[in-house]
Amino acid sequence: MKRLSDCRITIVGLGLMGGSLAGALRGQCRELTGVERQPAVLAVALSRQLIDRGTTDLGAGLARADVVVLATPVRTILKLLGEIGPLLPAGCLLLDLGSTKAQVVARMEALPDHVQPLGGHPMCGKEVSGIEAADPDLYQGQTWMLCPLLRTTPAALALGCALVTAVGARPLVLDAARQDDLSGTVSHLPYLLACALIDTAHAVAAADPAVGEVAAGGFCDTSRVAASDVTMWLDILLTNREVVVQAVRTYQAHLDQLVGLVAGGDEVALRAALGAVREKRLEMFP
Amino acid sequence: MKRLSDCRITIVGLGLMGGSLAGALRGQCRELTGVERQPAVLAVALSRQLIDRGTTDLGAGLARADVVVLATPVRTILKLLGEIGPLLPAGCLLLDLGSTKAQVVARMEALPDHVQPLGGHPMCGKEVSGIEAADPDLYQGQTWMLCPLLRTTPAALALGCALVTAVGARPLVLDAARQDDLSGTVSHLPYLLACALIDTAHAVAAADPAVGEVAAGGFCDTSRVAASDVTMWLDILLTNREVVVQAVRTYQAHLDQLVGLVAGGDEVALRAALGAVREKRLEMFP
Repeated sequence: MKRLSDCRITIVGLGLMGGSLAGALRGQCRELTGVERQPAVLAVALSRQLIDRGTTDLGAGLARADVVVLATPVRTILKLLGEIGPLLPAGCLLLDLGSTKAQVVARMEALPDHVQPLGGHPMCGKEVSGIEAADPDLYQGQTWMLCPLLRTTPAALALGCALVTAVGARPLVLDAARQDDLSGTVSHLPYLLACALIDTAHAVAAADPAVGEVAAGGFCDTSRVAASDVTMWLDILLTNREVVVQAVRTYQAHLDQLVGLVAGGDEVALRAALGAVREKRLEMFP
Repeated sequence: MKRLSDCRITIVGLGLMGGSLAGALRGQCRELTGVERQPAVLAVALSRQLIDRGTTDLGAGLARADVVVLATPVRTILKLLGEIGPLLPAGCLLLDLGSTKAQVVARMEALPDHVQPLGGHPMCGKEVSGIEAADPDLYQGQTWMLCPLLRTTPAALALGCALVTAVGARPLVLDAARQDDLSGTVSHLPYLLACALIDTAHAVAAADPAVGEVAAGGFCDTSRVAASDVTMWLDILLTNREVVVQAVRTYQAHLDQLVGLVAGGDEVALRAALGAVREKRLEMFP
């Protein structure tokens, strides 16, 4: 494989994730091409100097690429993987940014032999979406999971790691099932929890509209991810269904246990439980 | 009642909330006294110029006060309310900062007639506690609920509102039961949700320690309040038990509904539900 600095990189999809990645990689590679269906988005990406060139034509965008990054919602990635094979140049690295990996990696297996596929999931994001929210620093200091296939060569994986490192992120190599389990707990579950919190507050607000006035920092933080892009989340949830459903069930058991302590008024046990939670949180985020 | 600028104010308890309030009020009143059991905390408050004078002696601290603010955990407030009556100067305004109000206001009813009691709950806080975390800007732009008793005079309520406004907060006057219902949903519920999320992640981490590495912004925000002071939360939960338990039950029903849509894979209904959640969140926090 080439070195990253010698690569022509094409990013398909210039939303928050793709646009941010483009801005972070531009200048660190030979050429940065953006592929987008919407010309207006390409215009913004060009005017913000996130890409060197842009096109609405997938074939043209891929023609000379050494590295291709699919940065669309997961189910669009799955669709693209079914069509893109013949368009990909020989030897190119194909990476995606989808938040779930089992279905993506399975689909990657069917790509032509001349392609080097690599599943990817950067653990970052924002509750705002679109090219306007793109931020070249988005990946700085974040973990980026990489799921190589059996067919992925060490050289291709190394190039993927170099790309991740180039934008300031930490590569974490693991298999797709484990990545989906982990993401189900630390990302997909919190999203559903935030959504249910908003639904609850909204139901209470029907009886007492002051809810909006009194919702403060704690509520705001706990519900923040519920404002994120719906299509992205729909695709994540529908491509990681079993894991997400199981994570919610596990969560509900823990919540039941805590609220049982409150209902029972067992002060000693409740203090111990809350104290243990606080210690665990401080361990995770010192 | 006097004007705020003519008042001697005594704050009992110089943790995050009391220390921040002291710093915000100092210079806007005649004298700011802090009462604290721990001399080391008084020393910090004095050196940070949050108070004019400090004492470990409750009686001495209250002796000349025009306004007394109880800024301890809720059950300590309840205990103080049972003892403090004879120590309070005639005509003084007694305000508290406890996050639950029904039990506090009930206890305030028994105060001697020469006192003007007023329940209070500023809707702000931090996941860190103690005088070191005190921040005079903590109350800026926040809602501060006030629960007057039948015996509270309009002049006393007006002085309470003046104090709230002086630190940059917005007074919201309502009865104690309603305040507890609202707080149960927008504050106490999110705390328990965050705690259960930490428990869930910790259980998963027993099988896969990479959880800590991949937990990112969404998880961090959703679980932030779980790091808050345990004694404060224990008191809140135990003095608002019925409301909190009911809020969790309502929440679980909403979560069940959402996860049911995921499990069923009903794309149209799931998209509609997530879209509606996003709209509601954007309405609450534009």
